[in-house]
Amino acid sequence: MTHSHQIRVRYAECDRMGFVHHSIYALYFEEARTEILRNRGISYKDLEDDGILMPVRSMQFTFMKAGKYDDLLTIEVNLAAPPEVRCKFEYKTFNQNGELLNTGETELFFVRKSDLRPIKLPEQYKTFLTI
Amino acid sequence: MTHSHQIRVRYAECDRMGFVHHSIYALYFEEARTEILRNRGISYKDLEDDGILMPVRSMQFTFMKAGKYDDLLTIEVNLAAPPEVRCKFEYKTFNQNGELLNTGETELFFVRKSDLRPIKLPEQYKTFLTI
Amino acid sequence: MTHSHQIRVRYAECDRMGFVHHSIYALYFEEARTEILRNRGISYKDLEDDGILMPVRSMQFTFMKAGKYDDLLTIEVNLAAPPEVRCKFEYKTFNQNGELLNTGETELFFVRKSDLRPIKLPEQYKTFLTI
Amino acid sequence: MTHSHQIRVRYAECDRMGFVHHSIYALYFEEARTEILRNRGISYKDLEDDGILMPVRSMQFTFMKAGKYDDLLTIEVNLAAPPEVRCKFEYKTFNQNGELLNTGETELFFVRKSDLRPIKLPEQYKTFLTI
Repeated sequence: MTHSHQIRVRYAECDRMGFVHHSIYALYFEEARTEILRNRGISYKDLEDDGILMPVRSMQFTFMKAGKYDDLLTIEVNLAAPPEVRCKFEYKTFNQNGELLNTGETELFFVRKSDLRPIKLPEQYKTFLTI
Repeated sequence: MTHSHQIRVRYAECDRMGFVHHSIYALYFEEARTEILRNRGISYKDLEDDGILMPVRSMQFTFMKAGKYDDLLTIEVNLAAPPEVRCKFEYKTFNQNGELLNTGETELFFVRKSDLRPIKLPEQYKTFLTI
Repeated sequence: MTHSHQIRVRYAECDRMGFVHHSIYALYFEEARTEILRNRGISYKDLEDDGILMPVRSMQFTFMKAGKYDDLLTIEVNLAAPPEVRCKFEYKTFNQNGELLNTGETELFFVRKSDLRPIKLPEQYKTFLTI
Repeated sequence: MTHSHQIRVRYAECDRMGFVHHSIYALYFEEARTEILRNRGISYKDLEDDGILMPVRSMQFTFMKAGKYDDLLTIEVNLAAPPEVRCKFEYKTFNQNGELLNTGETELFFVRKSDLRPIKLPEQYKTFLTI
């Protein structure tokens, strides 16, 4: 199931080429997957308050076209596999003209906050994270 | 006593005017005051590990000239008053041509990490923070 | 005339105290004043495309209370004086509980993009920027 | 040929887990590859002033261990292939204890600033970019 999230590009997020700096998409994708979780009934903040952290294990972005200042971007997020020990999200960024700017994927894992040890996602959260 | 610290401007820190974004100087000044503390024998990290936080109470920057990509900046930091409940640092940023780019000041206070209540700086740190 | 703008705090915008880093408010205020301009019929992007830049001359923030991850902040922006050579905005940040987190002001000036010389704001824009 | 570059982790670069935010490594790697270029006699700034831009085509990071506030990181950069139309850099990040924190690779391409069209790297730069 795909979720869409809109983000307006900030001035400080563009570099001197006038393009959204490539590092910024990591922030956009994080915001977008937080909103897909919220949309499914999970606040990532609550997850952390429950003692579960979700560090990023890997990320991979491919850039086709530059985002620009003041663009109104649409990020499509897709949960790529049912989460067990890891959780994989896929992203596509479109600008206001419907042009595909880039694609990305990030793999996150679950960690117990108290001792930073990897854990499986507890059952009560899994129901929210079906594909 | 003034301390000098050098910082090379990163690509992503410049906006589409080609100038260092004004928000970035807050990061530069933070790095510079951390180094003045280190230079005086206090690691800010150790301070936090000892249970003392130093949130920023106020900041005030005046920009005369823009910093640019790849500039090698010199930040001069000055401890403006002996720290009690608060601690005031003053900054001047120069580029590699000796031009004054901006001035700033930040006021920080001391907070006990356990309950986030303001405290006086413990005596053992004060000796490091004479003017 | 005051304009309100909402911003959700991103994960990466919080530091290891769990608080919105003080530098980030410069980005929030920039986003908020861009939206007040858009609301009044001026796109800051169009202004730049017309050859007018608005660098920040000074900024001054006072922090009363920390913003936190996932907070839904309301930024109130106020144009403090009719723009001539400079343009002054005032800001107040509230969290979702209506608590005042901080206040700020930024002074911007107008610059001709072609030669980076200060100019007065052209008449056709002034009508949008009455107090 | 591998080049090493040291970076001290800034306070604002750490998130509320206390870890360097994953987006920040894109900045670290950019700084590191700029320094490898400088070391070989090319200033990336001069390259841009000569009308050549190097946008990022793709990036791929794998995180093994978290970087922390005040860590003194060593970034090893390696030019993976002789640049033609594209240019691939590989990175490894170590902390002050010699622990491997993550690996990364970024692929950049060359673009003519005037019309943003992809170009081959001009011959005069190639000699600096042998493996």
